[in-house]
Amino acid sequence: MAERIVVALGGNALGKTPEQQLELAKNTARPIADLVEKGYEVIIGHGNGPQVGMINLAMEFSANRGGNTPYMPFSECGAMTQGYIGYHLQQAIRQELERRGIRKECVTVVTQVVVDENDPSFQHPTKPVGSFYTKEEAETIAAEKGFVFVEDAGRGYRRVVPSPIPKRIVERRAVEQLVEAGDVVITVGGGGIPVVETAEGLEGVAAVIDKDRASALLARDIKADRLIILTTVDRVYVNYNTPDQRELAAMTLDDCGRYIEEKQFAPGSMLPKVESCMEFVRDSAPGATALITSLSRAAEALEGKTGTLITK
Amino acid sequence: MAERIVVALGGNALGKTPEQQLELAKNTARPIADLVEKGYEVIIGHGNGPQVGMINLAMEFSANRGGNTPYMPFSECGAMTQGYIGYHLQQAIRQELERRGIRKECVTVVTQVVVDENDPSFQHPTKPVGSFYTKEEAETIAAEKGFVFVEDAGRGYRRVVPSPIPKRIVERRAVEQLVEAGDVVITVGGGGIPVVETAEGLEGVAAVIDKDRASALLARDIKADRLIILTTVDRVYVNYNTPDQRELAAMTLDDCGRYIEEKQFAPGSMLPKVESCMEFVRDSAPGATALITSLSRAAEALEGKTGTLITK
Repeated sequence: MAERIVVALGGNALGKTPEQQLELAKNTARPIADLVEKGYEVIIGHGNGPQVGMINLAMEFSANRGGNTPYMPFSECGAMTQGYIGYHLQQAIRQELERRGIRKECVTVVTQVVVDENDPSFQHPTKPVGSFYTKEEAETIAAEKGFVFVEDAGRGYRRVVPSPIPKRIVERRAVEQLVEAGDVVITVGGGGIPVVETAEGLEGVAAVIDKDRASALLARDIKADRLIILTTVDRVYVNYNTPDQRELAAMTLDDCGRYIEEKQFAPGSMLPKVESCMEFVRDSAPGATALITSLSRAAEALEGKTGTLITK
Repeated sequence: MAERIVVALGGNALGKTPEQQLELAKNTARPIADLVEKGYEVIIGHGNGPQVGMINLAMEFSANRGGNTPYMPFSECGAMTQGYIGYHLQQAIRQELERRGIRKECVTVVTQVVVDENDPSFQHPTKPVGSFYTKEEAETIAAEKGFVFVEDAGRGYRRVVPSPIPKRIVERRAVEQLVEAGDVVITVGGGGIPVVETAEGLEGVAAVIDKDRASALLARDIKADRLIILTTVDRVYVNYNTPDQRELAAMTLDDCGRYIEEKQFAPGSMLPKVESCMEFVRDSAPGATALITSLSRAAEALEGKTGTLITK
């Protein structure tokens, strides 16, 4: 049986413009194709921070400044990024596989992720999205649309949205079907389109789901053997930027817990990555492991040559 | 064996704003769910005229007028519409199926469609997209980006893009896998993201692919039994708007050819629908048929109660 791997890819790794994204998707395709070539089943989750920011900004600018296009809710902007990013990734990966003589489908599934409307983050939204406004503008929009604004480091007022925990991947079964058919699948783009369950069914909400947490949930659900969370460094550090700094080759769940207590990992950066790995490892079959490493060294990390391995 | 049906849905049927689209997706979900409930395998192709127009306008407006977001190529705008429209459709259809106690995946596949870079339409682009410009603005952009502009009925200059014939659906096999797994699949959104084959692989082009032609190609490729092209009328007319006007219950390929010679069908409206049906019927197995009818009466049309049936 082929080992099944979910790879979580950062949205920042895909640049800020369509031209950059097209080039960076090609760079991304090579290490992904390495994994496929080695016989792994590969599923890709990816972020969309810069991309959903760009689309949300453009739609907002056009709607507000006479572009004569309608206001676009945040969850729909997220859906757009799944098409936009998925298109480039699936094109580049398929091409790289074909170049190597591997005939495989590579396909993006538009993916909704359910969050709990009682998630505490809805009471304390923290993720800034969209344009900067004056205090007066922000108050007008807040009154009209119910948005929450915060003052952002003297640069003006900016809307903030919550970052709730992902609970359920709606299209999970379809992802699994494609993986079972032998395809490379791109899913949970931007952590998934955030939806809540209502009496009438699912409904989009303005929120940002952490793509590492969504990828960890997916990995657990589709019984992946490995979760690989990609970042800018080859390994996780402790005592970062001190004379005692050291790279970690491996951590058990206990080690992770201890380092977290010691506040070794930066919130909003390495911490959610380590927590996502812990969740996957804890909730999966005994042999399941997680890896934190860089994109370019992912294949080596799977051979134990680099990366930080998280085990039970 | 369940009968396999490709349904081609118009982009105009989904409105102009996200709120309209969400409501209209729910209206669309009911007749689609009727087909699923009757035991048909359903694959949905859809248009994106108003949606890609909106996104392209907003991205262009923001890029040109100080929104500080990058210029977005037309094929990437098309990719965005697949996420945007697919999200609403898959959410609404899944919900309608669940309401009826039918548990099925409903899923959107981001889909590229190959066109021939030597398609004659590239020499004669005709589909207007994006904003109106003055003659001087248009000339500047034309010189900078190589776009083609035409004067549009005294309202200014507008970019035109070609409408080439779809040749190959890149993600066709993945669509087939999902259908075989029992899912309702949404694909070839907007006729597909238009790409051409180059020495380096597929590359997006600014073009508009007719969604009926793309749906017909898909239907042939996945060996559908039926192609249903939805429109605003229940049946095709001949001698339209004359005293001899009459509804057609059925046409053979020969009938279609004769009516086309008589110029019975409006170019850019009923003509491409009839031609798409003809292509599917001609290139498919002997029993394959096509239907032109309205969304609300699709299920009745399958029972022969309305619609125009196209047969060999």
